[in-house]
Amino acid sequence: MSRIAVIGGTGHLGKAIARRLAKAGHDVTIGSRAADKAQACAEEIGARAGTANADAAEGQDVVIVTVPHASQADTLDQIKDRVGSAIVVDTTVPLVPPKVMRVQLPAEGSAAQQAADGLGEGVRLVSAFHNVAAHILDDADLQVECDILCFSDDVEARGVVVNLCADMGLRGLAGGSLANSAAAEALTSILIYLNKTYKADGAGIRFTRLTTAPAV
Amino acid sequence: MSRIAVIGGTGHLGKAIARRLAKAGHDVTIGSRAADKAQACAEEIGARAGTANADAAEGQDVVIVTVPHASQADTLDQIKDRVGSAIVVDTTVPLVPPKVMRVQLPAEGSAAQQAADGLGEGVRLVSAFHNVAAHILDDADLQVECDILCFSDDVEARGVVVNLCADMGLRGLAGGSLANSAAAEALTSILIYLNKTYKADGAGIRFTRLTTAPAV
Repeated sequence: MSRIAVIGGTGHLGKAIARRLAKAGHDVTIGSRAADKAQACAEEIGARAGTANADAAEGQDVVIVTVPHASQADTLDQIKDRVGSAIVVDTTVPLVPPKVMRVQLPAEGSAAQQAADGLGEGVRLVSAFHNVAAHILDDADLQVECDILCFSDDVEARGVVVNLCADMGLRGLAGGSLANSAAAEALTSILIYLNKTYKADGAGIRFTRLTTAPAV
Repeated sequence: MSRIAVIGGTGHLGKAIARRLAKAGHDVTIGSRAADKAQACAEEIGARAGTANADAAEGQDVVIVTVPHASQADTLDQIKDRVGSAIVVDTTVPLVPPKVMRVQLPAEGSAAQQAADGLGEGVRLVSAFHNVAAHILDDADLQVECDILCFSDDVEARGVVVNLCADMGLRGLAGGSLANSAAAEALTSILIYLNKTYKADGAGIRFTRLTTAPAV
Protein backbone atom coordinates (compact mmCIF):
# COMPACT_ATOMS: atom_id res chain seq x y z
CA MET A 1 0.00 0.00 0.00
CA SER A 2 1.45 3.34 -1.08
CA ARG A 3 0.56 6.88 -0.09
CA ILE A 4 -0.54 8.54 -3.30
CA ALA A 5 -1.81 12.04 -4.00
CA VAL A 6 -3.71 12.88 -7.16
CA ILE A 7 -3.27 16.60 -7.91
CA GLY A 8 -6.17 17.96 -9.91
CA GLY A 9 -7.93 14.87 -8.63
CA THR A 10 -11.43 16.24 -9.09
CA GLY A 11 -10.94 16.39 -12.89
CA HIS A 12 -12.04 13.59 -15.19
CA LEU A 13 -8.68 11.81 -15.48
CA GLY A 14 -7.55 12.45 -11.91
CA LYS A 15 -10.77 11.19 -10.38
CA ALA A 16 -10.67 8.02 -12.48
CA ILE A 17 -7.06 7.30 -11.53
CA ALA A 18 -7.77 8.00 -7.86
CA ARG A 19 -10.84 5.77 -7.90
CA ARG A 20 -8.92 2.78 -9.24
CA LEU A 21 -5.98 3.34 -6.87
CA ALA A 22 -8.31 3.59 -3.87
CA LYS A 23 -10.14 0.45 -4.97
CA ALA A 24 -6.78 -1.33 -5.12
CA GLY A 25 -6.22 -0.45 -1.47
CA HIS A 26 -3.79 2.44 -1.78
CA ASP A 27 -3.89 5.37 0.64
CA VAL A 28 -5.14 8.06 -1.71
CA THR A 29 -5.39 11.81 -1.16
CA ILE A 30 -7.29 14.00 -3.62
CA GLY A 31 -5.79 17.41 -4.30
CA SER A 32 -7.74 20.27 -5.86
CA ARG A 33 -7.57 24.04 -6.06
CA ALA A 34 -10.66 24.00 -3.79
CA ALA A 35 -10.19 21.91 -0.65
CA ASP A 36 -13.94 21.43 -0.14
CA LYS A 37 -14.34 19.97 -3.62
CA ALA A 38 -11.38 17.69 -2.95
CA GLN A 39 -13.02 16.43 0.23
CA ALA A 40 -16.34 15.74 -1.46
CA CYS A 41 -14.59 13.88 -4.26
CA ALA A 42 -12.54 11.84 -1.79
CA GLU A 43 -15.69 10.73 0.00
CA GLU A 44 -17.36 9.80 -3.27
CA ILE A 45 -14.59 7.55 -4.53
CA GLY A 46 -13.33 6.13 -1.24
CA ALA A 47 -10.08 8.09 -0.99
CA ARG A 48 -8.70 8.75 2.49
CA ALA A 49 -8.58 12.54 2.29
CA GLY A 50 -9.11 15.58 0.11
CA THR A 51 -7.30 18.88 0.44
CA ALA A 52 -5.66 21.76 -1.45
CA ASN A 53 -3.15 20.70 -4.10
CA ALA A 54 0.01 21.90 -2.36
CA ASP A 55 -0.95 20.28 0.95
CA ALA A 56 -1.91 17.04 -0.78
CA ALA A 57 1.55 16.82 -2.34
CA GLU A 58 3.31 16.54 1.01
CA GLY A 59 4.25 13.29 2.71
CA GLN A 60 3.44 11.02 -0.24
CA ASP A 61 5.20 8.14 -1.94
CA VAL A 62 3.75 9.09 -5.32
CA VAL A 63 2.23 12.37 -6.52
CA ILE A 64 0.23 12.14 -9.75
CA VAL A 65 -0.40 15.44 -11.54
CA THR A 66 -3.54 15.49 -13.71
CA VAL A 67 -4.18 19.06 -14.80
CA PRO A 68 -4.68 20.66 -18.24
CA HIS A 69 -1.57 21.80 -20.08
CA ALA A 70 -2.50 25.43 -19.45
CA SER A 71 -2.31 24.81 -15.68
CA GLN A 72 0.72 22.52 -15.68
CA ALA A 73 3.47 25.05 -14.97
CA ASP A 74 1.60 26.83 -12.17
CA THR A 75 0.58 23.57 -10.54
CA LEU A 76 4.08 22.11 -10.59
CA ASP A 77 5.40 25.37 -9.16
CA GLN A 78 2.95 25.05 -6.26
CA ILE A 79 3.96 21.50 -5.38
CA LYS A 80 7.66 21.29 -6.23
CA ASP A 81 8.87 22.27 -2.77
CA ARG A 82 6.37 19.93 -1.09
CA VAL A 83 6.91 16.61 -2.87
CA GLY A 84 10.24 15.78 -1.21
CA SER A 85 11.44 12.37 -2.35
CA ALA A 86 8.09 11.30 -3.82
CA ILE A 87 7.85 10.05 -7.37
CA VAL A 88 6.00 12.67 -9.44
CA VAL A 89 3.90 11.33 -12.30
CA ASP A 90 3.04 13.92 -14.92
CA THR A 91 0.10 13.08 -17.19
CA THR A 92 -0.01 16.30 -19.19
CA VAL A 93 -0.90 16.19 -22.87
CA PRO A 94 0.13 19.37 -24.70
CA LEU A 95 -3.09 19.88 -26.65
CA VAL A 96 -3.52 23.31 -28.20
CA PRO A 97 -7.25 24.14 -28.31
CA PRO A 98 -9.19 24.47 -30.45
CA LYS A 99 -7.10 22.26 -32.80
CA VAL A 100 -6.81 19.32 -30.44
CA MET A 101 -6.78 16.80 -33.31
CA ARG A 102 -3.53 18.31 -34.60
CA VAL A 103 -0.19 17.24 -33.11
CA GLN A 104 1.48 20.40 -31.80
CA LEU A 105 4.33 19.42 -29.50
CA PRO A 106 6.00 22.20 -27.49
CA ALA A 107 9.44 23.56 -28.39
CA GLU A 108 10.93 21.60 -25.48
CA GLY A 109 9.89 18.41 -27.29
CA SER A 110 7.25 17.24 -24.84
CA ALA A 111 5.10 18.31 -21.90
CA ALA A 112 7.16 15.85 -19.85
CA GLN A 113 10.31 17.84 -20.59
CA GLN A 114 8.46 21.00 -19.60
CA ALA A 115 7.58 19.27 -16.33
CA ALA A 116 11.21 18.32 -15.80
CA ASP A 117 12.24 21.92 -16.38
CA GLY A 118 9.55 23.18 -13.99
CA LEU A 119 10.31 20.72 -11.19
CA GLY A 120 14.07 21.12 -11.43
CA GLU A 121 16.85 18.68 -10.61
CA GLY A 122 16.40 15.93 -8.08
CA VAL A 123 12.69 15.28 -8.56
CA ARG A 124 11.92 11.69 -9.56
CA LEU A 125 9.73 12.32 -12.60
CA VAL A 126 7.72 9.78 -14.59
CA SER A 127 5.38 10.60 -17.48
CA ALA A 128 2.33 8.38 -18.06
CA PHE A 129 -1.46 8.02 -18.60
CA HIS A 130 -1.61 10.15 -21.78
CA ASN A 131 -3.72 7.84 -23.92
CA VAL A 132 -6.40 6.28 -21.75
CA ALA A 133 -9.92 7.71 -22.02
CA ALA A 134 -10.93 9.10 -18.62
CA HIS A 135 -14.58 8.05 -18.82
CA ILE A 136 -13.61 4.44 -19.47
CA LEU A 137 -11.00 4.41 -16.73
CA ASP A 138 -13.60 5.89 -14.38
CA ASP A 139 -15.69 2.72 -14.51
CA ALA A 140 -13.48 0.71 -12.18
CA ASP A 141 -15.10 -2.59 -13.21
CA LEU A 142 -14.37 -2.11 -16.90
CA GLN A 143 -11.57 -3.89 -18.75
CA VAL A 144 -9.61 -1.04 -20.31
CA GLU A 145 -8.35 -1.83 -23.81
CA CYS A 146 -5.47 0.62 -23.67
CA ASP A 147 -1.84 0.12 -22.68
CA ILE A 148 -0.29 2.75 -20.42
CA LEU A 149 3.15 3.86 -21.62
CA CYS A 150 5.40 5.00 -18.78
CA PHE A 151 8.49 7.11 -19.48
CA SER A 152 11.33 8.13 -17.21
CA ASP A 153 15.06 8.53 -16.95
CA ASP A 154 14.68 7.00 -13.44
CA VAL A 155 14.26 3.29 -14.15
CA GLU A 156 13.20 2.40 -10.61
CA ALA A 157 10.56 5.13 -10.45
CA ARG A 158 9.23 4.04 -13.83
CA GLY A 159 8.92 0.49 -12.56
CA VAL A 160 6.87 1.71 -9.59
CA VAL A 161 4.40 3.37 -11.96
CA VAL A 162 4.22 0.30 -14.20
CA ASN A 163 3.27 -1.69 -11.09
CA LEU A 164 0.64 0.88 -10.06
CA CYS A 165 -0.93 0.36 -13.49
CA ALA A 166 -1.24 -3.34 -12.77
CA ASP A 167 -2.88 -2.52 -9.42
CA MET A 168 -5.41 -0.47 -11.38
CA GLY A 169 -6.19 -3.35 -13.75
CA LEU A 170 -4.19 -1.78 -16.58
CA ARG A 171 -1.25 -2.96 -18.60
CA GLY A 172 1.58 -0.54 -17.91
CA LEU A 173 4.60 -0.67 -20.21
CA ALA A 174 8.01 0.91 -19.87
CA GLY A 175 8.37 3.14 -22.94
CA GLY A 176 11.91 4.33 -22.42
CA SER A 177 13.38 7.67 -21.43
CA LEU A 178 11.42 10.77 -20.46
CA ALA A 179 12.06 12.27 -23.91
CA ASN A 180 10.05 9.41 -25.42
CA SER A 181 6.93 10.83 -23.79
CA ALA A 182 6.60 12.91 -26.98
CA ALA A 183 5.28 9.81 -28.74
CA ALA A 184 2.43 9.18 -26.30
CA GLU A 185 1.61 12.87 -26.02
CA ALA A 186 1.38 13.20 -29.80
CA LEU A 187 -0.68 10.04 -30.03
CA THR A 188 -3.47 11.59 -27.99
CA SER A 189 -4.33 13.95 -30.86
CA ILE A 190 -4.49 10.91 -33.14
CA LEU A 191 -6.86 9.16 -30.72
CA ILE A 192 -9.14 12.21 -30.63
CA TYR A 193 -9.07 12.24 -34.43
CA LEU A 194 -9.90 8.52 -34.57
CA ASN A 195 -12.77 9.00 -32.10
CA LYS A 196 -14.32 11.49 -34.49
CA THR A 197 -13.46 9.74 -37.77
CA TYR A 198 -14.25 6.15 -36.79
CA LYS A 199 -17.02 6.86 -34.28
CA ALA A 200 -15.05 5.43 -31.40
CA ASP A 201 -16.14 5.94 -27.82
CA GLY A 202 -12.69 6.27 -26.31
CA ALA A 203 -10.19 4.80 -28.80
CA GLY A 204 -7.12 3.29 -27.17
CA ILE A 205 -3.84 1.63 -28.12
CA ARG A 206 -2.61 -1.89 -27.67
CA PHE A 207 0.91 -3.00 -28.44
CA THR A 208 1.12 -6.38 -30.13
CA ARG A 209 3.60 -9.25 -30.14
CA LEU A 210 5.11 -8.45 -26.73
CA THR A 211 6.14 -11.69 -25.08
CA THR A 212 7.25 -10.84 -21.55
CA ALA A 213 4.79 -8.07 -20.68
CA PRO A 214 2.09 -8.61 -18.08
CA ALA A 215 -1.04 -9.99 -19.74
CA VAL A 216 -3.63 -7.55 -18.36
CA MET B 1 -5.17 -1.95 -60.54
CA SER B 2 -2.86 1.00 -60.00
CA ARG B 3 0.60 1.73 -61.35
CA ILE B 4 2.80 1.93 -58.29
CA ALA B 5 6.54 2.52 -57.92
CA VAL B 6 8.42 1.64 -54.76
CA ILE B 7 11.50 3.84 -54.52
CA GLY B 8 14.23 2.17 -52.51
CA GLY B 9 12.27 -0.96 -53.25
CA THR B 10 15.16 -3.35 -52.71
CA GLY B 11 15.33 -2.39 -49.02
CA HIS B 12 13.56 -4.37 -46.29
CA LEU B 13 10.44 -2.21 -46.03
CA GLY B 14 10.21 -1.36 -49.73
CA LYS B 15 10.51 -4.95 -50.84
CA ALA B 16 7.84 -6.08 -48.39
CA ILE B 17 5.42 -3.36 -49.51
CA ALA B 18 6.10 -4.11 -53.18
CA ARG B 19 5.60 -7.85 -52.64
CA ARG B 20 2.16 -7.37 -51.10
CA LEU B 21 1.08 -4.83 -53.71
CA ALA B 22 2.18 -7.12 -56.54
CA LYS B 23 0.38 -10.04 -54.93
CA ALA B 24 -2.77 -7.90 -54.81
CA GLY B 25 -2.53 -7.42 -58.56
CA HIS B 26 -1.10 -3.93 -58.81
CA ASP B 27 1.31 -2.96 -61.57
CA VAL B 28 4.46 -2.54 -59.48
CA THR B 29 7.82 -1.06 -60.46
CA ILE B 30 10.81 -1.41 -58.16
CA GLY B 31 13.16 1.56 -58.02
CA SER B 32 16.70 1.37 -56.68
CA ARG B 33 19.95 3.29 -56.95
CA ALA B 34 21.21 0.29 -58.97
CA ALA B 35 18.92 -0.66 -61.85
CA ASP B 36 20.23 -4.23 -62.03
CA LYS B 37 19.40 -4.84 -58.38
CA ALA B 38 15.96 -3.37 -58.97
CA GLN B 39 15.38 -5.80 -61.85
CA ALA B 40 16.48 -8.82 -59.85
CA CYS B 41 14.23 -7.80 -56.97
CA ALA B 42 11.28 -7.24 -59.32
CA GLU B 43 11.67 -10.76 -60.72
CA GLU B 44 11.89 -12.26 -57.24
CA ILE B 45 8.69 -10.71 -55.92
CA GLY B 46 6.59 -10.65 -59.07
CA ALA B 47 6.76 -6.94 -59.81
CA ARG B 48 6.42 -5.84 -63.44
CA ALA B 49 9.70 -3.95 -63.73
CA GLY B 50 12.81 -2.75 -61.94
CA THR B 51 14.81 0.34 -62.79
CA ALA B 52 16.69 3.34 -61.39
CA ASN B 53 14.76 5.39 -58.80
CA ALA B 54 14.19 8.49 -60.90
CA ASP B 55 12.97 6.49 -63.91
CA ALA B 56 10.72 4.37 -61.74
CA ALA B 57 9.00 7.49 -60.41
CA GLU B 58 7.67 8.50 -63.83
CA GLY B 59 4.23 7.60 -65.17
CA GLN B 60 2.86 6.20 -61.91
CA ASP B 61 -0.37 6.62 -60.00
CA VAL B 62 1.40 6.20 -56.67
CA VAL B 63 5.09 6.53 -55.77
CA ILE B 64 6.09 5.06 -52.41
CA VAL B 65 9.41 6.26 -50.99
CA THR B 66 11.11 3.80 -48.63
CA VAL B 67 14.62 5.03 -47.94
CA PRO B 68 16.51 5.76 -44.70
CA HIS B 69 16.17 9.25 -43.25
CA ALA B 70 19.75 10.04 -44.26
CA SER B 71 18.84 9.44 -47.92
CA GLN B 72 15.39 11.04 -47.86
CA ALA B 73 16.26 14.55 -49.07
CA ASP B 74 18.49 13.37 -51.92
CA THR B 75 16.00 10.76 -53.06
CA LEU B 76 13.05 13.17 -53.09
CA ASP B 77 15.19 15.65 -54.99
CA GLN B 78 15.85 13.00 -57.65
CA ILE B 79 12.19 12.14 -58.15
CA LYS B 80 10.31 15.39 -57.54
CA ASP B 81 10.35 16.49 -61.18
CA ARG B 82 9.36 13.01 -62.36
CA VAL B 83 6.32 12.16 -60.24
CA GLY B 84 3.88 14.48 -62.04
CA SER B 85 0.40 14.11 -60.57
CA ALA B 86 1.17 10.84 -58.76
CA ILE B 87 0.45 10.48 -55.05
CA VAL B 88 3.78 10.34 -53.21
CA VAL B 89 3.83 8.21 -50.06
CA ASP B 90 6.70 8.99 -47.72
CA THR B 91 7.53 6.29 -45.15
CA THR B 92 10.55 7.94 -43.56
CA VAL B 93 11.14 7.57 -39.84
CA PRO B 94 13.59 10.16 -38.50
CA LEU B 95 15.70 7.82 -36.40
CA VAL B 96 19.03 9.22 -35.25
CA PRO B 97 21.53 6.34 -34.98
CA PRO B 98 22.89 5.05 -32.74
CA LYS B 99 20.15 6.15 -30.31
CA VAL B 100 17.25 4.74 -32.30
CA MET B 101 15.24 3.95 -29.14
CA ARG B 102 15.12 7.66 -28.28
CA VAL B 103 12.49 9.92 -29.88
CA GLN B 104 14.36 12.69 -31.70
CA LEU B 105 11.99 14.46 -34.06
CA PRO B 106 13.49 16.97 -36.51
CA ALA B 107 13.10 20.72 -36.02
CA GLU B 108 10.47 20.77 -38.78
CA GLY B 109 8.30 18.59 -36.53
CA SER B 110 8.36 15.43 -38.63
CA ALA B 111 10.10 13.69 -41.50
CA ALA B 112 6.80 14.10 -43.37
CA GLN B 113 7.11 17.87 -43.11
CA GLN B 114 10.69 17.60 -44.35
CA ALA B 115 9.35 15.61 -47.30
CA ALA B 116 6.74 18.30 -47.99
CA ASP B 117 9.47 20.95 -47.93
CA GLY B 118 11.66 18.89 -50.26
CA LEU B 119 8.93 18.07 -52.77
CA GLY B 120 7.52 21.59 -52.88
CA GLU B 121 4.00 22.79 -53.58
CA GLY B 122 1.62 20.80 -55.72
CA VAL B 123 2.84 17.31 -54.89
CA ARG B 124 0.14 15.09 -53.39
CA LEU B 125 1.95 13.83 -50.30
CA VAL B 126 0.82 11.12 -47.88
CA SER B 127 2.86 9.81 -44.94
CA ALA B 128 2.40 6.18 -43.87
CA PHE B 129 3.93 2.76 -42.99
CA HIS B 130 6.09 4.01 -40.09
CA ASN B 131 5.23 1.35 -37.54
CA VAL B 132 4.98 -1.99 -39.31
CA ALA B 133 7.91 -4.39 -38.96
CA ALA B 134 9.36 -5.06 -42.44
CA HIS B 135 10.19 -8.72 -41.83
CA ILE B 136 6.60 -9.45 -40.80
CA LEU B 137 5.13 -7.52 -43.71
CA ASP B 138 7.49 -9.39 -46.03
CA ASP B 139 5.70 -12.69 -45.38
CA ALA B 140 2.72 -11.97 -47.61
CA ASP B 141 0.68 -14.79 -46.07
CA LEU B 142 1.02 -13.47 -42.53
CA GLN B 143 -1.73 -11.61 -40.69
CA VAL B 144 -0.05 -8.38 -39.61
CA GLU B 145 -1.08 -7.23 -36.13
CA CYS B 146 -0.31 -3.57 -36.78
CA ASP B 147 -2.55 -0.75 -37.98
CA ILE B 148 -1.15 1.56 -40.65
CA LEU B 149 -1.69 5.23 -39.84
CA CYS B 150 -1.97 7.39 -42.97
CA PHE B 151 -1.52 11.16 -42.77
CA SER B 152 -2.14 13.85 -45.35
CA ASP B 153 -3.59 17.27 -45.92
CA ASP B 154 -5.02 15.80 -49.17
CA VAL B 155 -8.02 13.81 -47.99
CA GLU B 156 -8.56 12.02 -51.30
CA ALA B 157 -4.93 10.96 -51.61
CA ARG B 158 -4.99 9.70 -48.03
CA GLY B 159 -8.06 7.62 -48.84
CA VAL B 160 -6.23 6.01 -51.76
CA VAL B 161 -3.43 4.91 -49.44
CA VAL B 162 -5.88 3.61 -46.83
CA ASN B 163 -7.39 1.48 -49.60
CA LEU B 164 -3.98 0.24 -50.73
CA CYS B 165 -3.43 -0.96 -47.17
CA ALA B 166 -6.59 -3.03 -47.41
CA ASP B 167 -5.34 -4.51 -50.70
CA MET B 168 -2.19 -5.53 -48.82
CA GLY B 169 -4.18 -7.26 -46.07
CA LEU B 170 -3.54 -4.45 -43.61
CA ARG B 171 -5.83 -2.17 -41.67
CA GLY B 172 -5.10 1.36 -42.85
CA LEU B 173 -6.47 4.23 -40.80
CA ALA B 174 -6.73 7.91 -41.58
CA GLY B 175 -4.71 9.64 -38.85
CA GLY B 176 -5.38 13.24 -39.76
CA SER B 177 -3.22 15.95 -41.25
CA LEU B 178 0.35 15.55 -42.45
CA ALA B 179 1.63 17.23 -39.27
CA ASN B 180 0.18 14.32 -37.27
CA SER B 181 2.80 12.06 -38.83
CA ALA B 182 5.00 13.12 -35.91
CA ALA B 183 3.04 10.73 -33.69
CA ALA B 184 3.67 7.65 -35.82
CA GLU B 185 7.28 8.59 -36.49
CA ALA B 186 7.94 9.02 -32.76
CA LEU B 187 6.16 5.77 -32.01
CA THR B 188 8.72 3.80 -34.00
CA SER B 189 11.38 4.49 -31.39
CA ILE B 190 8.97 3.23 -28.74
CA LEU B 191 8.37 0.04 -30.75
CA ILE B 192 12.11 -0.56 -31.04
CA TYR B 193 12.39 -0.03 -27.29
CA LEU B 194 9.52 -2.46 -26.63
CA ASN B 195 11.11 -5.05 -28.92
CA LYS B 196 14.20 -4.97 -26.75
CA THR B 197 12.52 -4.61 -23.36
CA TYR B 198 9.68 -7.10 -23.83
CA LYS B 199 11.43 -9.50 -26.20
CA ALA B 200 9.03 -8.80 -29.03
CA ASP B 201 9.73 -9.95 -32.55
CA GLY B 202 8.29 -6.95 -34.35
CA ALA B 203 6.01 -5.16 -31.88
CA GLY B 204 3.09 -3.38 -33.52
CA ILE B 205 0.21 -1.13 -32.59
CA ARG B 206 -3.52 -1.70 -32.73
CA PHE B 207 -6.15 0.95 -32.10
CA THR B 208 -9.07 -0.25 -30.02
CA ARG B 209 -12.79 0.59 -29.83
CA LEU B 210 -13.07 1.85 -33.42
CA THR B 211 -16.51 1.06 -34.73
CA THR B 212 -16.56 2.02 -38.39
CA ALA B 213 -13.02 1.05 -39.42
CA PRO B 214 -12.40 -1.88 -41.74
CA ALA B 215 -12.01 -5.04 -39.71
CA VAL B 216 -8.76 -6.35 -41.17
